Amino acid sequence: MREFELIDSLRRRLAATRADTRLGIGDDAAILAPPPGHEVVITTDTLIAGRHFPDDTPPEDIGFKSIAVNLSDLAAMGADPAWLTIALAAPALSAGWCDRFIDGILEALSDTGVDVVGGDTTKSDTLTISVTALGLVPAGAALRRDGARVGDLVAVTGSLGDAAAGLTCWPHRDGASADERALISRLTRPTARHGRRLRGRVHAAIDVSDGLLADVGHMLSLSGVGATIDADALPASPALARYAASVDERRRLQATGGDDYELCVTLPEDALDSARAALDCPFTVIGRIESQPGLRLTDAHGDTLDPQWLARAGWDHFDGH
Amino acid sequence: MREFELIDSLRRRLAATRADTRLGIGDDAAILAPPPGHEVVITTDTLIAGRHFPDDTPPEDIGFKSIAVNLSDLAAMGADPAWLTIALAAPALSAGWCDRFIDGILEALSDTGVDVVGGDTTKSDTLTISVTALGLVPAGAALRRDGARVGDLVAVTGSLGDAAAGLTCWPHRDGASADERALISRLTRPTARHGRRLRGRVHAAIDVSDGLLADVGHMLSLSGVGATIDADALPASPALARYAASVDERRRLQATGGDDYELCVTLPEDALDSARAALDCPFTVIGRIESQPGLRLTDAHGDTLDPQWLARAGWDHFDGH
Repeated sequence: MREFELIDSLRRRLAATRADTRLGIGDDAAILAPPPGHEVVITTDTLIAGRHFPDDTPPEDIGFKSIAVNLSDLAAMGADPAWLTIALAAPALSAGWCDRFIDGILEALSDTGVDVVGGDTTKSDTLTISVTALGLVPAGAALRRDGARVGDLVAVTGSLGDAAAGLTCWPHRDGASADERALISRLTRPTARHGRRLRGRVHAAIDVSDGLLADVGHMLSLSGVGATIDADALPASPALARYAASVDERRRLQATGGDDYELCVTLPEDALDSARAALDCPFTVIGRIESQPGLRLTDAHGDTLDPQWLARAGWDHFDGH
Repeated sequence: MREFELIDSLRRRLAATRADTRLGIGDDAAILAPPPGHEVVITTDTLIAGRHFPDDTPPEDIGFKSIAVNLSDLAAMGADPAWLTIALAAPALSAGWCDRFIDGILEALSDTGVDVVGGDTTKSDTLTISVTALGLVPAGAALRRDGARVGDLVAVTGSLGDAAAGLTCWPHRDGASADERALISRLTRPTARHGRRLRGRVHAAIDVSDGLLADVGHMLSLSGVGATIDADALPASPALARYAASVDERRRLQATGGDDYELCVTLPEDALDSARAALDCPFTVIGRIESQPGLRLTDAHGDTLDPQWLARAGWDHFDGH
């Protein structure tokens, strides 16, 4: 496939449909017209073969995930996704590979209203996909990491740990059980949550990409607060609950596994019902924001946990010491 | 250098200064507030080591060029550059390399008023830099490729062919003459032109990145017109005029060499003086837009040129056949 054919193919299959897309792919740049009274939220994330997904990941899954991780960042800002650009660097690709890659992109974008407005395709020994995503929020309404307040509940969407468990199943995926296939699909097909529905309902938000504790740590340090998290309150999917070999293993996968792309938020207790009703997925309270800096992990009895994997997960970086 | 330290370093050295940057690097995404009555222009370009610059290019030059090529795309739209994101994928990098890379970025951004509002650093075997740049234009005022009209002059900023000549000098750069060093610097330090000053003065614009004939061809096909270009009117730097071994060689470098990042525009004859006065660089008429489709190359006497390198440069793709 020649250098520009992927972009041509993208353009054909991804015709701009938004009224506020003044000009899509095909010029030196695209032209966008954000609506009055709105701000533009922008994020960029790169996926690299062998690092962010296994080398033998099907192209549909690569396309899907490269979009989803960026939509998740927009969700964590409470933004309505609007536009994105895709920069693909890859070894010589077949037309079949590209068609399947675009299939995955289209699937990730279905029902989002997003226009692909730019792209770049270049040859490279390392398969690399950089996506930049733009979203819209009413001025001043974006969710940020630095808004957590003492007394807030900490809550998380969906379930945690599936993607990290799925990665352990990947090598034997051909003979995987139904549970293992479910876990793998969380790794290959992460779904961005509807963060826009949390606007006006939560004080702070982040998406869980590096692992829960690491990501909560980012919120805490930017907000100048601390938190206690109940490891036994972390929501587990039925597949993970059955798959984890021990309670300790389940806790580790949920607390430190990355790639879940759930949203973790802090919110006042009286906003909990409204936030839960606004979402179309489980929404679980997992802890509380406190004035004491640092992040404390407990079990269901309130006893402090200090398993070995905490130190390995970089706990020192996040506990205020 | 750890994965996130480059972004931390970028954040420290590239503090957001624009009033319309509501939130810079450090959250899930940045928040931008485009001024009322303006549209946002967005472009993305990837540079890959060994393909877009020689493997042994100094990090300052890599940083500089990765910014400049994107600013050039914004210039070709007539946009005021405003924001950008930088995604760097690289083998393990020293702090020294990163400092020098950022030096080049800062140099390319000096006096532009641009804020770096996002980034991503990942480990990769292949050094890859993807930049997404955003600019602002008054609504409806962006310059496009598809506006060329029959009777327009075709004009180009600066001089053509230096970067392609510089590439031929690269292998012996340590012993390069002053002329050769000047040509090499056009390759390593391209400068985006002030395309914003051409708003309201030209009908169509494109930046010369693939090579003049290829880029003019893009304008012609999108505008549904043709053109005749005078190969002997193409502006040459004094260094190139002395360096080129023959008239044919100079024409080839100027007509097909890429990476010049000059602007090629079409404009009505009565706007020429105004456009020239608005720019701070040479602005040379090189041809005229015609109704006959295709691109014709002549010498100063108006005789058609059909050198062998035209076919090799993909001429067939652009001549309407």
